[in-house]
Amino acid sequence: MIRFKNSVIARTNLGKPSRVIVAGHIDTVPVADNAQAVLISKDGKLPSDGSSVSEDVLFGIGSCDMKGGVAVAFRAAATIENPQFDVTYIFYECEEIESSRNGLTLIAAEHPEWLTADIAVLLEPSNANIEAGCQGTLRANISTSGKRAHSARSWLGENAIHNLNAILETLNSYEPAKVLIDGLEYREGLNAVSISGGIAGNIIPDQALVEVNYRYAPNKSGADAEQHIRDTFKDFTVEFSDNAPGAMPGLDRPALADLVSRVNGQVAPKFGWTDVARFSAMGVPAVNLGPGDPGLAHSRNEFVPVSQLQKCEETVFSWLRG
Amino acid sequence: MIRFKNSVIARTNLGKPSRVIVAGHIDTVPVADNAQAVLISKDGKLPSDGSSVSEDVLFGIGSCDMKGGVAVAFRAAATIENPQFDVTYIFYECEEIESSRNGLTLIAAEHPEWLTADIAVLLEPSNANIEAGCQGTLRANISTSGKRAHSARSWLGENAIHNLNAILETLNSYEPAKVLIDGLEYREGLNAVSISGGIAGNIIPDQALVEVNYRYAPNKSGADAEQHIRDTFKDFTVEFSDNAPGAMPGLDRPALADLVSRVNGQVAPKFGWTDVARFSAMGVPAVNLGPGDPGLAHSRNEFVPVSQLQKCEETVFSWLRG
Repeated sequence: MIRFKNSVIARTNLGKPSRVIVAGHIDTVPVADNAQAVLISKDGKLPSDGSSVSEDVLFGIGSCDMKGGVAVAFRAAATIENPQFDVTYIFYECEEIESSRNGLTLIAAEHPEWLTADIAVLLEPSNANIEAGCQGTLRANISTSGKRAHSARSWLGENAIHNLNAILETLNSYEPAKVLIDGLEYREGLNAVSISGGIAGNIIPDQALVEVNYRYAPNKSGADAEQHIRDTFKDFTVEFSDNAPGAMPGLDRPALADLVSRVNGQVAPKFGWTDVARFSAMGVPAVNLGPGDPGLAHSRNEFVPVSQLQKCEETVFSWLRG
Repeated sequence: MIRFKNSVIARTNLGKPSRVIVAGHIDTVPVADNAQAVLISKDGKLPSDGSSVSEDVLFGIGSCDMKGGVAVAFRAAATIENPQFDVTYIFYECEEIESSRNGLTLIAAEHPEWLTADIAVLLEPSNANIEAGCQGTLRANISTSGKRAHSARSWLGENAIHNLNAILETLNSYEPAKVLIDGLEYREGLNAVSISGGIAGNIIPDQALVEVNYRYAPNKSGADAEQHIRDTFKDFTVEFSDNAPGAMPGLDRPALADLVSRVNGQVAPKFGWTDVARFSAMGVPAVNLGPGDPGLAHSRNEFVPVSQLQKCEETVFSWLRG
């Protein structure tokens, strides 16, 4: 067992013919009045919006994304003494922020040998089934310009904030693609994630911008995705700030067949970018398999059903035990 | 002559049948590489951007707003021994910042009698002509809401930034009123001065807002102006942060007629808010009459033409001497 910066790695060395990685990130998004974990019984009400739940759930930030999955991996590491593979457990920091601080990035830079394996399983929320591959994600700043003036004589200037209108219209009329790969439908998305502009309360501003996040199907390269954004916003200044291509599902690889069989072939596409792509880029086929509805990740209503914690544990334990 | 905090007041007491106030603020906006006053001859170049000037000008911060006007008032106070009115000269602090620190506010709180007069002339830049009254100004936050979600599954949320589109459309199609009062056309304006929204690069935000600045004609009350903004943005949440009503020109008042005649009736509306509104609210009709182009106030290129200093001095001197 090794602590490396704020990540923890534990490896078995049993001389097994193959090695798998079981990994989860240990950070969460910022708190939204949901720092306290609470067990809510069936028909009880969520503390967030008072809606009732149809089964026993564990409520609180990170319960779904992805401390539920991390809990399953902790129990596996503590319980399974003689797995059918050698196992590398990785509990890593900073998946939720920029890639340069991601625990896997930091490990890969200094100890890439710790990340070698035949396949990797990330316990990202996927309703306790397999979500294969992942979509790419890029961020870009789309900006407008204008001419600065005193707001009491606005006709002498040109308002860069008013000019943002055309960018928002483009976003509102955008039809995201749906792309079929290995029988899985990847749903793309193009959204504003921030907007800013303004100098002072009495000045017509000469600059403003919208930051967009494009989620793209795994058969597009990073360069393809950037070209698509340049084409979509061809009348504006476009600056890319971040781009992480996705990962193809790779379900045809033999190493994944054992795991797929244990969820009765229930495989869905992963819409969110996950570190599956990072493993894939390092040549390690990877899938997401964790408890929780990915749609609840980052929401104020975040919870994980107890039944999914149990189902995920059964799947992972049976697979590791063989 | 009285020093009151950082303002200076000088009053004649000659037993004249009427009293006028001649006033100017002595602070400037922050320096922008233009602290050194420089006399630039015709066809010379400005130190700021190297552009050339078509007549002799005095360059430097505050030259236009409003040390040029203050210089005229200083010379009047020092030179004119027997004016046709009793005169109160007021050189006051902190016009450029929040109202609570404004020298006139401070004087009015403790010595309102020092501010009584038949009319007041502010030497605010108005190209050495009269700019009468002033427009009101209010600021409001117009906000949208949505539903927070992970940006990889944006169809589960509703993007508050995308919803700003309707606010910007309203601003872009807004036709500001032009209001005729005493023969002067007051040009209103409704503009975004800031825009903001966004939580993180992977979250569909549930809140966003545009701060607007409404410049309104002096025949509207503050309450009228707020109602107009509520009506204009009736589909959105509106919160007011600031509201200062304008001042009617009052050119029909006999006390102003003598002054207007000395600029050959050259009277324009004042678009920006000035302390004319403060005098007006105290029952003292007031006008702006100072050297300099108000469009240069607060700019890096700030200067005042020497010819306007002379013209303003001639007007003010002839009026005070009678």
